[in-house]
Amino acid sequence: MNANAHSLLLTDLYELTMAAAFFENRHNPTATFELFVRRLPENRNFLVAAGLEQALEWVEQTCCAKVDVDFLRRHPAFGHISDEFFEYLRNFRFSGEIWAVSEGTVVFPNEPLVRVTAPLIEAQVLETYLLAAITYQTTVASKAARVILAAQGRDVVEFGSRRAHGPEAGLLAARAAYIAGCAGTSNVEAGRRFGIPTFGTIAHSYVMAFDDEVEAFQRYSSLFPEASVLLVDTYDTLRAVDKIIAAGLKPQGIRLDSGDLAELSTAARRKLDAAGLNETKIFASGDLNEQSIVELGRRGAKIDAYGVGTELVVSRDAPALSGVYKLVELERDGRTSYQAKFSADKGTHPAAKQVWRFRDADGKFARDLISQAGKRIAGAEPLLVKVMSEGKRTSHETLEQIRARAKKQIEDLPQQLFSLEQEAKYRVEFSDELERLLALVRKEHQPA
Amino acid sequence: MNANAHSLLLTDLYELTMAAAFFENRHNPTATFELFVRRLPENRNFLVAAGLEQALEWVEQTCCAKVDVDFLRRHPAFGHISDEFFEYLRNFRFSGEIWAVSEGTVVFPNEPLVRVTAPLIEAQVLETYLLAAITYQTTVASKAARVILAAQGRDVVEFGSRRAHGPEAGLLAARAAYIAGCAGTSNVEAGRRFGIPTFGTIAHSYVMAFDDEVEAFQRYSSLFPEASVLLVDTYDTLRAVDKIIAAGLKPQGIRLDSGDLAELSTAARRKLDAAGLNETKIFASGDLNEQSIVELGRRGAKIDAYGVGTELVVSRDAPALSGVYKLVELERDGRTSYQAKFSADKGTHPAAKQVWRFRDADGKFARDLISQAGKRIAGAEPLLVKVMSEGKRTSHETLEQIRARAKKQIEDLPQQLFSLEQEAKYRVEFSDELERLLALVRKEHQPA
Repeated sequence: MNANAHSLLLTDLYELTMAAAFFENRHNPTATFELFVRRLPENRNFLVAAGLEQALEWVEQTCCAKVDVDFLRRHPAFGHISDEFFEYLRNFRFSGEIWAVSEGTVVFPNEPLVRVTAPLIEAQVLETYLLAAITYQTTVASKAARVILAAQGRDVVEFGSRRAHGPEAGLLAARAAYIAGCAGTSNVEAGRRFGIPTFGTIAHSYVMAFDDEVEAFQRYSSLFPEASVLLVDTYDTLRAVDKIIAAGLKPQGIRLDSGDLAELSTAARRKLDAAGLNETKIFASGDLNEQSIVELGRRGAKIDAYGVGTELVVSRDAPALSGVYKLVELERDGRTSYQAKFSADKGTHPAAKQVWRFRDADGKFARDLISQAGKRIAGAEPLLVKVMSEGKRTSHETLEQIRARAKKQIEDLPQQLFSLEQEAKYRVEFSDELERLLALVRKEHQPA
Repeated sequence: MNANAHSLLLTDLYELTMAAAFFENRHNPTATFELFVRRLPENRNFLVAAGLEQALEWVEQTCCAKVDVDFLRRHPAFGHISDEFFEYLRNFRFSGEIWAVSEGTVVFPNEPLVRVTAPLIEAQVLETYLLAAITYQTTVASKAARVILAAQGRDVVEFGSRRAHGPEAGLLAARAAYIAGCAGTSNVEAGRRFGIPTFGTIAHSYVMAFDDEVEAFQRYSSLFPEASVLLVDTYDTLRAVDKIIAAGLKPQGIRLDSGDLAELSTAARRKLDAAGLNETKIFASGDLNEQSIVELGRRGAKIDAYGVGTELVVSRDAPALSGVYKLVELERDGRTSYQAKFSADKGTHPAAKQVWRFRDADGKFARDLISQAGKRIAGAEPLLVKVMSEGKRTSHETLEQIRARAKKQIEDLPQQLFSLEQEAKYRVEFSDELERLLALVRKEHQPA
């Protein structure tokens, strides 16, 4: 798909009907919305924030994107809406302020990842895009962190583009996985656009396209002497290793893609070493995930690097986060009115917020406190920083900075959160002040 | 993300290293590749093919897209590759033939959804994009078919864009869900681009943005008299229904988004009917899936339409299909050489194929036979049709045609495949001829 139309219409219809209703009612007070995840999925003890860059890029650019207002004019729902509104939409630009948790930061449920303050209409219409941009990359970065923990220092390369939820998702997954610590990706466009190292070996079709397996290996090795990782399982894995040795090839690596990877890697390693090919690395792939990688490690597999695709890019055990974007504050005529929602199991806390992170004596993360924004909490570090002012970005980070942050953040986590099997809770609390505010707002909406 | 660069680089690196290796070796015989799904995920008795349109659009357009060959020239792996190859890539166009199963067709594992015949290099480099484009939409269409079966005739509207794997995935999900029978989507761009009906109600933030819940309802209803579906659970669901009645509003519908939807819908229906609002529909949403919809039906919920988001667009119980793209045939110097792969659990059958569908006496689908392409099987209908010739599309279908096909195809399935809980197998066999070919190819590769 030629997806060059990431315009303001790439959103839910109700964002635009609500915008029209606010507009027609001249109801456009300053609003603050917060984007956060309601709860951790099973099998996740923490999340790694990612996707902000693409979200902000979009917010900054929506002002220039051409909105096809004719489509909306013809839409049956919009029959009673004035020309002024369509003109407003055609010239839409975001003029507000955004605070956000920096990408690569470890975060937990209820902690705002993004806080938007702007005229109500502008803040409202960002909802769908912000959620899609941020929760997907956060999903993948959080899954990747687990896979990397499982690999215990061995390289993990993301190569799931073909199984991602469409071509763009593959690109975004490559970025998020790299942030979380993957060594690189197979996605060439991700390399070109984001500067992520790209890797590749060969496919079974390459081997099959020649009459002879060894001929296929030889021809590849001579063209890619610095990148010759040979796939050995097209016909018979260990026979292919024998053939490589007999032909006198010295590949950078071999790739195992099927069968018992622990047994095959051990047998292949023995053969390679016996032939003096101690430098030839063994790569493994084939529907791997954190559990199978832990199991391979436990069985003493002689694997130097893992290629992880499908499980990583679709985050199979937790393919979605409960990400929401909620109104928390309105300012009208100089008066602040705090907003909360009391729906069963879906309540929210009112007021613009900041997240404060405390460390223990060893410098590890001890607990987080969610407070009202603008307050100063001693002895803790604030996680949200200003990233946009009057619709313009105020800070830029390189992908390498973000990746270094993620590494450091994960290192600073309490050890028990590293468990891939055991649920471990990190302490996150709302400040007393926020709890009082919630009680107040609730009281206002109590039946008389 | 401004994803206007769906160029040939939106692919796996090894597609391009293999292309270079073929090119430099002047090894470019005519090749046939087939894209198919290896096995059904748990909880799926059939798949609904979708995504071909976007795949073909891309193939036809890659010829004109600008490939950033400078990026590849600088890539460490490509140090030994000639200028001629980069020139070839810069001017790349696909010149081959494609056969495919029409979108909306019910398909099963091992059945080629797409068959590509072209010079080896051209056919190879399509792999990543074709898989990402087709398997995601097929995933969503197949999930949507289940949700629609669960809804037993009530409308299902897709509104998962915010939880999709990035903004583009939301757009693709809307299309796939509509093909499978959803009544529409919340995604405005999907409406604009694909002509899908778009629906929306209001959000909690809309209600909260006014001082008074009823004021919010009134203002919305007067602006959108034909599309006034009022969200009633922001503070207290049944009290909000009372308020609507007391204010004399006559909304098109109300939406329940939390709590016990069966109980609340029954109570709300009673209140609405007592007030003469028999025409006001009840919409339900909130992390719904096929199981919860069946359960609501079983409990006699008074729900007229379901909004389904996250579960649908990420296909939570089966977020990826085991889609592969495999070389099956090579033609060189007038000689056809059949290709198969014998890797453990990942074997493939050789030769270009056609799928034949037989019906029983009642006109229901009885079984499929996968034969060698070009053979005529009596009494059955071939599923693959030619869609591209010399790189140009030879057929176009409207989304409505595709959607009508899906409806008819699902109606023609044997009843037992409709079960949402029970696994039911549909009979799919390879022809004796293909089994013989496989044995032959295997023998050729046997150790001497």
